[in-house]
Amino acid sequence: MDFKGANIVSIGQFQREDIERVFAVADQMEPYALRQKVTRVLEGAILGNMFFEPSTRTRVSFGCAFNLLGGEVRETTGFESSAIAKGESLYDTARVLSGYSDVICMRHPEAGSVGEFAAASRVPVINGGDGPNEHPSQALLDLYTIKKELAAKQRSIDGLRIAMIGDLKHGRTVHSLCKLLMLFSNVQLTMVSPPELAMPEGIVDQLRAAGHAVVVSDDLAASLGDQDIAYATRIQEERFSSQEEADLYRGRFRLNQAVYTQFCKPNTVIMHPLPRDSRESANELDNDLNQNPNLAIFRQADNGVLVRMALFALVLDVADQVDKHARPVNWYHRRG
Amino acid sequence: MDFKGANIVSIGQFQREDIERVFAVADQMEPYALRQKVTRVLEGAILGNMFFEPSTRTRVSFGCAFNLLGGEVRETTGFESSAIAKGESLYDTARVLSGYSDVICMRHPEAGSVGEFAAASRVPVINGGDGPNEHPSQALLDLYTIKKELAAKQRSIDGLRIAMIGDLKHGRTVHSLCKLLMLFSNVQLTMVSPPELAMPEGIVDQLRAAGHAVVVSDDLAASLGDQDIAYATRIQEERFSSQEEADLYRGRFRLNQAVYTQFCKPNTVIMHPLPRDSRESANELDNDLNQNPNLAIFRQADNGVLVRMALFALVLDVADQVDKHARPVNWYHRRG
Amino acid sequence: MDFKGANIVSIGQFQREDIERVFAVADQMEPYALRQKVTRVLEGAILGNMFFEPSTRTRVSFGCAFNLLGGEVRETTGFESSAIAKGESLYDTARVLSGYSDVICMRHPEAGSVGEFAAASRVPVINGGDGPNEHPSQALLDLYTIKKELAAKQRSIDGLRIAMIGDLKHGRTVHSLCKLLMLFSNVQLTMVSPPELAMPEGIVDQLRAAGHAVVVSDDLAASLGDQDIAYATRIQEERFSSQEEADLYRGRFRLNQAVYTQFCKPNTVIMHPLPRDSRESANELDNDLNQNPNLAIFRQADNGVLVRMALFALVLDVADQVDKHARPVNWYHRRG
Repeated sequence: MDFKGANIVSIGQFQREDIERVFAVADQMEPYALRQKVTRVLEGAILGNMFFEPSTRTRVSFGCAFNLLGGEVRETTGFESSAIAKGESLYDTARVLSGYSDVICMRHPEAGSVGEFAAASRVPVINGGDGPNEHPSQALLDLYTIKKELAAKQRSIDGLRIAMIGDLKHGRTVHSLCKLLMLFSNVQLTMVSPPELAMPEGIVDQLRAAGHAVVVSDDLAASLGDQDIAYATRIQEERFSSQEEADLYRGRFRLNQAVYTQFCKPNTVIMHPLPRDSRESANELDNDLNQNPNLAIFRQADNGVLVRMALFALVLDVADQVDKHARPVNWYHRRG
Repeated sequence: MDFKGANIVSIGQFQREDIERVFAVADQMEPYALRQKVTRVLEGAILGNMFFEPSTRTRVSFGCAFNLLGGEVRETTGFESSAIAKGESLYDTARVLSGYSDVICMRHPEAGSVGEFAAASRVPVINGGDGPNEHPSQALLDLYTIKKELAAKQRSIDGLRIAMIGDLKHGRTVHSLCKLLMLFSNVQLTMVSPPELAMPEGIVDQLRAAGHAVVVSDDLAASLGDQDIAYATRIQEERFSSQEEADLYRGRFRLNQAVYTQFCKPNTVIMHPLPRDSRESANELDNDLNQNPNLAIFRQADNGVLVRMALFALVLDVADQVDKHARPVNWYHRRG
Repeated sequence: MDFKGANIVSIGQFQREDIERVFAVADQMEPYALRQKVTRVLEGAILGNMFFEPSTRTRVSFGCAFNLLGGEVRETTGFESSAIAKGESLYDTARVLSGYSDVICMRHPEAGSVGEFAAASRVPVINGGDGPNEHPSQALLDLYTIKKELAAKQRSIDGLRIAMIGDLKHGRTVHSLCKLLMLFSNVQLTMVSPPELAMPEGIVDQLRAAGHAVVVSDDLAASLGDQDIAYATRIQEERFSSQEEADLYRGRFRLNQAVYTQFCKPNTVIMHPLPRDSRESANELDNDLNQNPNLAIFRQADNGVLVRMALFALVLDVADQVDKHARPVNWYHRRG
């Protein structure tokens, strides 16, 4: 795909070579995210960080990514806007807001809204999550994390063994990750969930049609034995018709250090899209895993900044210039 | 008026020469807003963008305008502040907040609040809307749009023919626009509204006293025939005592492509302060006008950035320096 | 203390020499806050300004302080975050958010929360207020104000005579100020409150054990006679079990120009942590004091920016570099 000036709305836009391009640029961004250098390549550019549904971490991650490239961020959080409440169309909102900035990141509670917005926008739009539909930068950062974690073991995504665990029916992130994995070779997936929350058949069929092996299971212990990645997810309470229904499933698959030691092969990498539910009633990933060096969940969050920097750099066509605008860092950066 | 260090609270402060000065500086800002150049003239300056009443577009427009001049923006949205809830006076709020920034843009739900705040502020204050009272940058951007749209036809504001349509009783923007138009010559205004929502007589009288022709009508079709500008407005639902009362008037004057073709002279420019209500029940300006090149509503929004850049540049006395701090643009700016 | 990379969570961390170091750096910041110069020493650095409890003035003050050093600010206001609502632990929030920025300022409604967050954070954390517990930058700015006000009279903090007035039981700021004053010599404190809202005995005992003189009184007039500083506080309504209970105490100790003239010695400096409650029912500090040159409450707010700039400069270890990155100011800065 031609990234220059493109909207990034769906992971369906990405071919394998596009993903590899994003990851190569993300790698290039690491010294800036680690504050080994500063770049000012986007000095004077403005990101419209339009979060019509709240999401602190995604919003701040996009905003920091843009700041790290030297740009400014204007933003909105939640439906403060009386405009939409006053009956304004997404078309109008897009025409107006896109006159203010150089690129827009948008989150909105309705599926399809970001695509509709992007079609009317005069500047590139990056989907920061449109309800139950897509969240492409999350899928990319998940896959980028898998790539980096495997690379440390001289492995590649081709041939990956991954268990996806939890609410696979509603989990937007695992759906998107499956679609990205289809672009690679010989992935072996184990889908671990209660039958009622199983991965949609359409996705399983697509994976198999693309030549990947898919095992469906509701037995966590039996599924962990030979995985490179154990990808746990949260019960998407807000997608159930009632709290009671959601509670039926919370806490069904709990991964903790004892389970890990007993059932996982050494160095199985643990991932989760975050936030993890640390309340006793859920406890998908126990805090006793926090000292486990294979717990990659915070490296995932860090990788999100790199992937978002890469998307901005590609869409605004500055990937080749980032290093030309580099400067030394003046301040002490503690990274404890 | 001496702009340097001034508060911009009311359009009553402006003489014709002041307006022309603002517009000249706004013209000068266009290459920056179009990202043909970047300027850093306000690098290190801080805008306090204090929106005690939410308004995404106005807030973001002011913020982007300041960023485009190189400055930083700190802001607040809504009555998050517990201070006012704790009984703090506007005087105290102004004394404190004005110690933080170089200029303040303030929106507040109460008429007169911004003037009271400005009187106590130690730095210049620009009124971003004080309830039903004033919103001077909106009036200026409306008039600036009229100037630019007419200039494309080798016309000037003097001699303008304009129809104002809709809720002319509560519409803050049309009241302010009338007051600005009084400063020009020989304007012909047609006020189209239900009688209950007519333009206040005081304003009509002032216009006539200043030598302008005013026709009052409740017949849209008959009023569109020979206008340069058709300025539509929204029913200000929040100003009515009940939704039911507001609903009586919603949708009374609908402008769409068929009406435009049948009744308007060619190239009549369509304006609206936005947001327009695109719900079926209102539909003041139909979406089928979106491809009509005379629909100027999004150019209005774009012009708002230029006018706000101009106000900041004048108040902070950097209009003459903007170009000295210009740099090339590093990134690809798509303006679709 | 070694400021480089440190968390600033409690005023208990500070020794006298640390306070003097903060104040020396704060003094150095004044030309930047007054816009006599601009510095860009933190250009490229990011502050995560995480306000999980709203506080416009503290949030904006921290944000402006960081901008004045050249850095960028990403922020959150209130519990917009669904993450904590979804059961995320403070540990996880801290691990994630600290991956985005170079330093975090955090406010949170629960006592101890900021310390817990700081322990998990990978970058330095400054406590912006953790509920009823601590607000160290407020205590520092109060003491810095006392130092500056006394210095104008060739006096030092040692030997200070101060009356603290109002709700001394719940007032976080006066508790913290007392703890800082313990580090100095021979302070004479008069604690003026209704008996039910008296300064906690533990603090009084500590002050006396440290060699300071403490008088406890509920008679305002009799207490004002020979003070250098009269420090008034607000009834902390939100700490009472009911509004009715709070109302019993509101307005008990009102300081106005008549009281000042009759009972205070000339040039007694009036302080208040702000916001002051200007409603008739409370009116702790009457507006008729606004023209009294000894009313230092807005100088306090201004000093807050200096102290916060100093904390950032020390924690990020750039105090020595600030002046090296100085530039002239391009714009007109009115400070009325």
